[in-house]
Parts: sequence; C-alpha cells; structure tokens
Amino acid sequence: MEVPPCTKCGSPSIIFQRYSGLHLCKKHFIEDVERKVKRRIRKKRMIEQGDKIAIALSGGKDSSALLILFKKIIKMRKDVELVAISVDEGIAEYRPKTLEKAKSLADKLNVPHIIRSFEDVYGNSLDELVEKAEKRYGWMRGCSLCGVLRKRLLNNISREIGATKLAVGHNLDDEAQTILMNYLRGDVERLLRLSPRKEREEFIPRIKPLVEVPEKEVALYSLLHGVEIEHEECPYASESYRFDVRDFLNYFEMGHPGTKYSLLRGYEKLIDMIGVMDTLPKEFFELSSCVRCGEPTSGKMCKVCEFLEKLGT
Amino acid sequence: MEVPPCTKCGSPSIIFQRYSGLHLCKKHFIEDVERKVKRRIRKKRMIEQGDKIAIALSGGKDSSALLILFKKIIKMRKDVELVAISVDEGIAEYRPKTLEKAKSLADKLNVPHIIRSFEDVYGNSLDELVEKAEKRYGWMRGCSLCGVLRKRLLNNISREIGATKLAVGHNLDDEAQTILMNYLRGDVERLLRLSPRKEREEFIPRIKPLVEVPEKEVALYSLLHGVEIEHEECPYASESYRFDVRDFLNYFEMGHPGTKYSLLRGYEKLIDMIGVMDTLPKEFFELSSCVRCGEPTSGKMCKVCEFLEKLGT
Repeated sequence: MEVPPCTKCGSPSIIFQRYSGLHLCKKHFIEDVERKVKRRIRKKRMIEQGDKIAIALSGGKDSSALLILFKKIIKMRKDVELVAISVDEGIAEYRPKTLEKAKSLADKLNVPHIIRSFEDVYGNSLDELVEKAEKRYGWMRGCSLCGVLRKRLLNNISREIGATKLAVGHNLDDEAQTILMNYLRGDVERLLRLSPRKEREEFIPRIKPLVEVPEKEVALYSLLHGVEIEHEECPYASESYRFDVRDFLNYFEMGHPGTKYSLLRGYEKLIDMIGVMDTLPKEFFELSSCVRCGEPTSGKMCKVCEFLEKLGT
Repeated sequence: MEVPPCTKCGSPSIIFQRYSGLHLCKKHFIEDVERKVKRRIRKKRMIEQGDKIAIALSGGKDSSALLILFKKIIKMRKDVELVAISVDEGIAEYRPKTLEKAKSLADKLNVPHIIRSFEDVYGNSLDELVEKAEKRYGWMRGCSLCGVLRKRLLNNISREIGATKLAVGHNLDDEAQTILMNYLRGDVERLLRLSPRKEREEFIPRIKPLVEVPEKEVALYSLLHGVEIEHEECPYASESYRFDVRDFLNYFEMGHPGTKYSLLRGYEKLIDMIGVMDTLPKEFFELSSCVRCGEPTSGKMCKVCEFLEKLGT
C-alpha cells in the first residue's frame, strides 16, 4: 500500500490525524506538535520572565517529550531556567531502567538533573511500603499510594530549589480521562481543582503544556527525537476505573474523531463560567497545616502522613 | 435458585438495585419509585398551586408510568389539573399501536386526552416528510426531524390549553446519556439549556419528574401497573451517538453501580455553581421571532421552519 502524501508538502506522511483529517510528514508533524504546545503555553501564560521551571522527568515518553520541547522552546530565552527532577519510587525491575533513560536525556540536553528517592525521604521504597501494607491490611493500591507520595515529593523538591513552576507531562488522553472520570463520579471538587484559577500559595504552580497533544503523538514525537519507548507497564498500575474510561474514550474517538478535544474544550468552558475562585467559598481553598508534617492540608492530617501512619512509617 | 428476600420486609423480592444494594418486593419497589419521584417534584418545585399540567403521553413505558404516577400523586390535590397530550407523528405500522395504548390508559385513568397529528399541523405525516427528504436529499435523519417537530407541537398544544407545565417522561438513563453526550461534544450551551434557571416566557416550562428513576425501573413500574411494554423500536430510531453513549453507560454501570446517578448529581452541582441566568449574557436567553411562523428562535428562522422549508412544505 502506498503511503499517503503529507497534506502540507506532499512528501510521504508518517501519521494520519483522524480528528483533523491531515496526513503529516515528519517535519510537519513535529511542527504541528510544537505549535500546539506553544499555543497552550501562551494561552495559559505558563512561562513568565525570570521563571525557574522544574520539569518532572520520569524518563517515560511523556516527560521526555516535555523536556525536549521545553529545551527547544526556551532555547532563545536567557531569562528562563530549566531543572529536571526525577523521583525514584523504588520499584525493582521496573524503575531503574527508565530512571537511567531520564539521566541520559537530561545529560544529553545539558539540563541540571535532581533525583530524589522515596527511600531517602519517606524511609522506605514503594516496594517496601506496599509489602508493609499487604502484611497489615492484606491489600493496598500501590498506584494511589505512589501517586500521593510522588506528587508531594515533586512539589517539595521544586520548592526547595526555588522553582516558580512545576511542568508535568500529562497529555490529552490523560487529561480527557481525568475529566471524564470526575464527570462520571460527579466529583465536582476534583473537577475544579484540575484547573484552579488562583494557585494556592503553598504549592508550586503545576503547568501541563502537553495537554493538547494526543498520547500517540507524544509517543511519536519522543520516538522521532531518539527516545526509546518503554512498553513495559508499571507493576502497580491498576486503576481499573481509569482503564475503563480510557478504553471507552479510545473506542469513542475512533467512531467520533475529535472527542477527546471537545471533551477538554467543553470542560474548560464550564470552568471558565464557574470562575472558580470568585464563586467558591473560601474554605474550599483555605488550608490548615498537617499536624504531623506541617504541609498544607484540607483536613487535620495530610494524605501523605495518613498513608505513612497507617503503615507505621 | 431461591429468590432473595426483600431487604425491607423479607417477602420475595422482584428486583435487585445494584446501586443501593437493596432487594425489593413489589410493594417496596413501588414505594421506592414513588418516593424518588415525589422527592424530585418537591426539590425542583415542579407542582404549584393552581397548576394545569400537560402530560406528554406517547403511550410507551416512560410516559405511561408518568401519567400513572401523577394521577396517584395528584389524587389528593383538588387544585391541580391534569391533561394528557399525544402527538401522532404518522409512522405506519409503529405508531398506531402505541397511540391506542395511550388512549386506553388516559380513558382508564379518567384523564382528558388530546391527540394532534403532524398531518394536521404540518400538512404531512413523518413518513411523508422523510420520503420527501429522501427524494430531495437522498437522506435525512428522521429521528432529529421528528424530535424538533414533536417538541414544538407539545409546547404549542400545552400553551393553547392554558397548561402551566409540560411534564415529560425522561428517565435517569435518558438524562445521563444526554449529559454525557454534551460533555463529550463539549456542547456547553446544550448542557446549560438542559436545566435553565429561569424558563423563557414563550415556552411552557418542561418538568422531568422521572429523572431519578433508572429506565429499567420505570419499565418495571409500568409493567406492574398493567402497561404492556412495547419492545418494537421506532423505525427511525438511529441516533448512533446516543446509542454508543448508552451502551458505554450501561456497561460502566455494571462495573461501577451508581454511575448514572453520580453523573446526574455532578452535573446538577456544576449547573448550580454556574447559576446560568446570572452569569450568561442576555443574548443567550433573548429570542427573536421566526420570520416564517413567529415562534421564538435564536436565529432568523426557527428549526421547525428550517426543516419544513427545506422539504418545501
């Protein structure tokens, strides 16, 4: 079968975007991804003068693309600083390989790189924490535990190094899934927190520059920039709810191309209408300090300490 | 296999509600449905003193349940009047049977019943309109055409007879599907119009008392009240988008019982936060008059006239 020509220049295409109807060659595909990311950065005013941006670099396809993109975009700006930060959760067999990739990418791109581990900060690796949980409670979702601990750690490293932003590699699929999950659960609080109007001062503002790029395209972008795609899934990945939603969205996107985009756009319009900070009661954004670690929390004890205390750590 | 006992009284159950964990016997199931409908009517202040309520009665399971329920609920109130209204769209083979059922139910319940046909009002039956469309354009979605024409007619009959409310039989499944469809399409306007804060004066306010009752339960409620369930589907039913969404929601509800409810609740919370009428530009609710028929419309010509003119009717 012949390869269809690039809609823009006629050379052989490497991808067909069902949602746009475009066939794109390597050059025009890369341009298209970068255009989407730059547009998003501009629209959401993600980069400001004097910013020090921490890039959460797991070493997977999304965060690798993020670092490559930022390096390209920032290149011309002397007033913006980049630092890559990685968390070593401590997952035998799985994590060391991707962490190695993170290291070599940061080296290659000449970006300072900080690695911190669960072991150092929480006294135990994820493997150990999950083992403890299994002994005590027979079962624990490693994926939720890891998410909470990693998110905290990324925030705190960013704060320590004086970063003004924390960039994460969420792609269109991730974001669309999260939005749909919260719609289905009727979890309005989480829907609002996904894009708070005014960031809480205690937290380094998170930015998501890849949110308009579909997962497949992020993967292809990484691949075209020499990133080896890791096909092995994390052994703790087990968010069945998210997987169900993901499968549905992928199936639906086939029959109705552009659904992930329209879902995201509609969500953003709704959030704009609500105007979050202006209409919500103060308590919604006001936080107290965790009785155990002092970090901001909406309850008495933060989620991180709740987990750790449950596990006697 | 033994029938599990009713969770409330121990007699044999006839239904298991996965979302509530309850097994219910006939008596307690009927009580449960009526409680949900009464609660909804109260919460949304659907019935006010002196109301004349038009019930859209197609003769199917939903609208039949609606009429039965209203007759029961209104029974004690001398200050509220009921009128059933049916539209004969003109669909050979399919419509006469259900229309016959509508007639005999209204008779049996002793509720005045008005039938008006597309033929009378638009000069053509739906069958004829679709045939014209097929000759002119090769194709037309009968289902969309029918929806627009029927909705208009129900409104206008209600207005003519001085009804203060128009009750429709949408159940939880219908509503959850519509909400999810609009989320996926990012159609914020339709999401807001689903539950306008202040009704437009030109339209008889539509109320949806069954919206907290799952489709299956509405069907069972009808069946238990002697309504024969029609299994034949309308020959024009072809909303593939809605069907995809329906299948997903049904599948998801199996794995995550209560999803249809949480979707509805979350939607209602969001809408409450937006406060529709207060934040939206006036143009959103301000209407002009259709140049052809004088009915309110947001454009120059209303949807009904657009369709009819396209078909040269």
